[in-house]
Amino acid sequence: MKAFAEMSNEELLALKSQLEKEYNECKQLGLNLNMMRGNPAPDQLSLSNDLFEGLEEKTGFKTKAGVDARNYGLPTGLPETKELFAQILGTKADNIFIGNASSLNMMFDALMRACAFGEIDSEKPWFQVEGRKWLCPTPGYDRHFKVTEKLGFELIAVPMTPNGPDMDIVEELVKDPKVLGMWSIPVYSNPDGIVYSEETCNRLASMKTGAKDFRLFWDNAYVVHHLYEDESTHGSVPDMLALCEKYGNANRVYEFASTSKISFAGSGLACMAANADNMAAAVKTIGIQAICSNKVNQLAHSVMFPDLNAIKERMKKHADILRPKFEMTINVLRNELGDTGICHWHEPKGGFFVSVFVLPGTAKATVEMCKDLGVALTPAGATYPYGKDPQDSNIRFAPSFPSLDDIEKAVQVFTLCAKLAAVNKLLEA
Amino acid sequence: MKAFAEMSNEELLALKSQLEKEYNECKQLGLNLNMMRGNPAPDQLSLSNDLFEGLEEKTGFKTKAGVDARNYGLPTGLPETKELFAQILGTKADNIFIGNASSLNMMFDALMRACAFGEIDSEKPWFQVEGRKWLCPTPGYDRHFKVTEKLGFELIAVPMTPNGPDMDIVEELVKDPKVLGMWSIPVYSNPDGIVYSEETCNRLASMKTGAKDFRLFWDNAYVVHHLYEDESTHGSVPDMLALCEKYGNANRVYEFASTSKISFAGSGLACMAANADNMAAAVKTIGIQAICSNKVNQLAHSVMFPDLNAIKERMKKHADILRPKFEMTINVLRNELGDTGICHWHEPKGGFFVSVFVLPGTAKATVEMCKDLGVALTPAGATYPYGKDPQDSNIRFAPSFPSLDDIEKAVQVFTLCAKLAAVNKLLEA
Repeated sequence: MKAFAEMSNEELLALKSQLEKEYNECKQLGLNLNMMRGNPAPDQLSLSNDLFEGLEEKTGFKTKAGVDARNYGLPTGLPETKELFAQILGTKADNIFIGNASSLNMMFDALMRACAFGEIDSEKPWFQVEGRKWLCPTPGYDRHFKVTEKLGFELIAVPMTPNGPDMDIVEELVKDPKVLGMWSIPVYSNPDGIVYSEETCNRLASMKTGAKDFRLFWDNAYVVHHLYEDESTHGSVPDMLALCEKYGNANRVYEFASTSKISFAGSGLACMAANADNMAAAVKTIGIQAICSNKVNQLAHSVMFPDLNAIKERMKKHADILRPKFEMTINVLRNELGDTGICHWHEPKGGFFVSVFVLPGTAKATVEMCKDLGVALTPAGATYPYGKDPQDSNIRFAPSFPSLDDIEKAVQVFTLCAKLAAVNKLLEA
Repeated sequence: MKAFAEMSNEELLALKSQLEKEYNECKQLGLNLNMMRGNPAPDQLSLSNDLFEGLEEKTGFKTKAGVDARNYGLPTGLPETKELFAQILGTKADNIFIGNASSLNMMFDALMRACAFGEIDSEKPWFQVEGRKWLCPTPGYDRHFKVTEKLGFELIAVPMTPNGPDMDIVEELVKDPKVLGMWSIPVYSNPDGIVYSEETCNRLASMKTGAKDFRLFWDNAYVVHHLYEDESTHGSVPDMLALCEKYGNANRVYEFASTSKISFAGSGLACMAANADNMAAAVKTIGIQAICSNKVNQLAHSVMFPDLNAIKERMKKHADILRPKFEMTINVLRNELGDTGICHWHEPKGGFFVSVFVLPGTAKATVEMCKDLGVALTPAGATYPYGKDPQDSNIRFAPSFPSLDDIEKAVQVFTLCAKLAAVNKLLEA
């Protein structure tokens, strides 16, 4: 297919007529497909079905050191679980706090502590900082943005590049003492699947910030979530805790991870990593909030995943399920849109999402048309602060849950709608 | 033994000498006993060892309605789990939100929401209410007090009576619009084991408060935790949600409960109950904080406890373990202190604690002496706001965890120390 931009008006009109015909035919199919939700597929979840089986026999409910996991105690987590997450994140077990199942919850709570009580290097609680701001690399994760919006931050969009957030812009923005922090998903970003470069990490760790209590929220949600066995394709970033310390900004970063896409979504384990001073302050407040996290779940995970190798083996099995779905998505995009010049996308080597940029000004129309044809996508704009994509261009796909057949159909429907919306837009101009 | 108050100076001196001899003999035993912690005993925890066994076989990880509990979704909890807690609390399932394992965490979060964002009927977030106050029935639960202390409330002690908090005093205090709420453990209060009378409940539900956004935190931690089969001994209170609504104060109460002393401590289930309007506001914020609670744990609990009868059967087994420990505690107290006139206590018919009032001015000295003899007790003062018992009189026992033998020894040591401290005090006077 010729690039749309090079088409004459007549060619566009002819194409429009053909696409509309396809659209109407498609509508007759009465599809009911969903690529909205970043949910693991049932066969991924089934990999963990024996998480609790024989736990009593295997452990007597005792930790390696003989502590009864069924009772109160060990507020920062089981030592073996902390060690596991330390290996996953490439940091020290002392830096790890094991929470319940949701890393989002741990981020919300960490921000709430900063807002209510201040960070250890804050002059006052962040709720008292009028006009507080937060940097949001975009496209990004809508749930991140909603947390900082709810807590009264002005959300400042920062464009993503193939190497992570545009650091020239970030370094300029953080001079403002009202900018108190930044979201980041450094490995396989949601939704683009971009991996932060070493330079990006170095600049984030070393940059001068106007706020002396600036905090980087390092959501390493997909740190082990590679799609390919070939390790040269594996995204990775340095231990950000060590890197920030190296540059004299030891308190700068909170790191988060979970097993939501390793074991059970919403019923796995989540962790926060922080340096000694941040951790001491957090533990003090969390110790007032609760007595301990769910340690039986920690024990079960530590039996299923005794070390990082067990995690890696499990992630290969997840990859075997996910890889064809990602490749199907990308292949349909390439085949249907490759020559049109109206769309572009990053081809992720891991993570959970594919993000497509359609012709600016057509994302909402495309998602609407998809809905009309029975294909539910994440709302256009969701990947931007306040749900507003200024270019009206980005659309997120979640290919994990549907079957291969459904993905093929859904992405085909999407490409049809993206083309039709683009033609309509170009004819308007 | 003669009442201490009726003893002459000579008699007291003779008694002191005898008690000191016993004290020194006891010290030789090198005891190492602990009655500090309100932890279930291992044999209580073992009642739930098969919580997860065969879960896949029994359920295929599906809820009754066929939802996959291993994936994201059902943010307010499994319908069957909500129904179970509704039965436990005598309220409607629509009023129930299932959290993770810790009801304390749910209380902290509920208060944090009020502080950060305000209640639905607040003029402003509570963090902005200068001089905000919170009522604390005393003796009470130290972790409650620490939550409101951390959130910047001035803690106002309210004395407990055999019918619950002294309502004449409460009704007077709540006229102050800075008094924003109150802690309460209505059934088998921590630490006295007192059950709020129906009149107390009615007065709490109907009282006029200066703050229109006043909130009662109704921690029904021990609602099914009876020690005796005879139902006439069972503590119970009305459905406080319905009662507050009846009196035109529908938004007044948040109720909490957990299975920490039913299944696993720290790894069970916790819930919050609230009326429709409070619940809607809470769910909105909690939906930003996290995607859902641990539903695999909910599923497992719902299989183990399909209804209130299953809970009641389990609680009978707990009672069989706990009852002898409570009775041992009370019997030693009666035998050793019954005639002395220096101590008094409530004999609980359920719950987890026994609370003893020693001669005013001797609680700290008694706990210190116990420590010296190798018996660890909850620090004196812990049951009061800021850890300060103005009478220096109340001491909490947690008889659940130690063995019967250890309890007998520990309480005997306690009575020895309480007597010696009292004699010392009386001789000072």
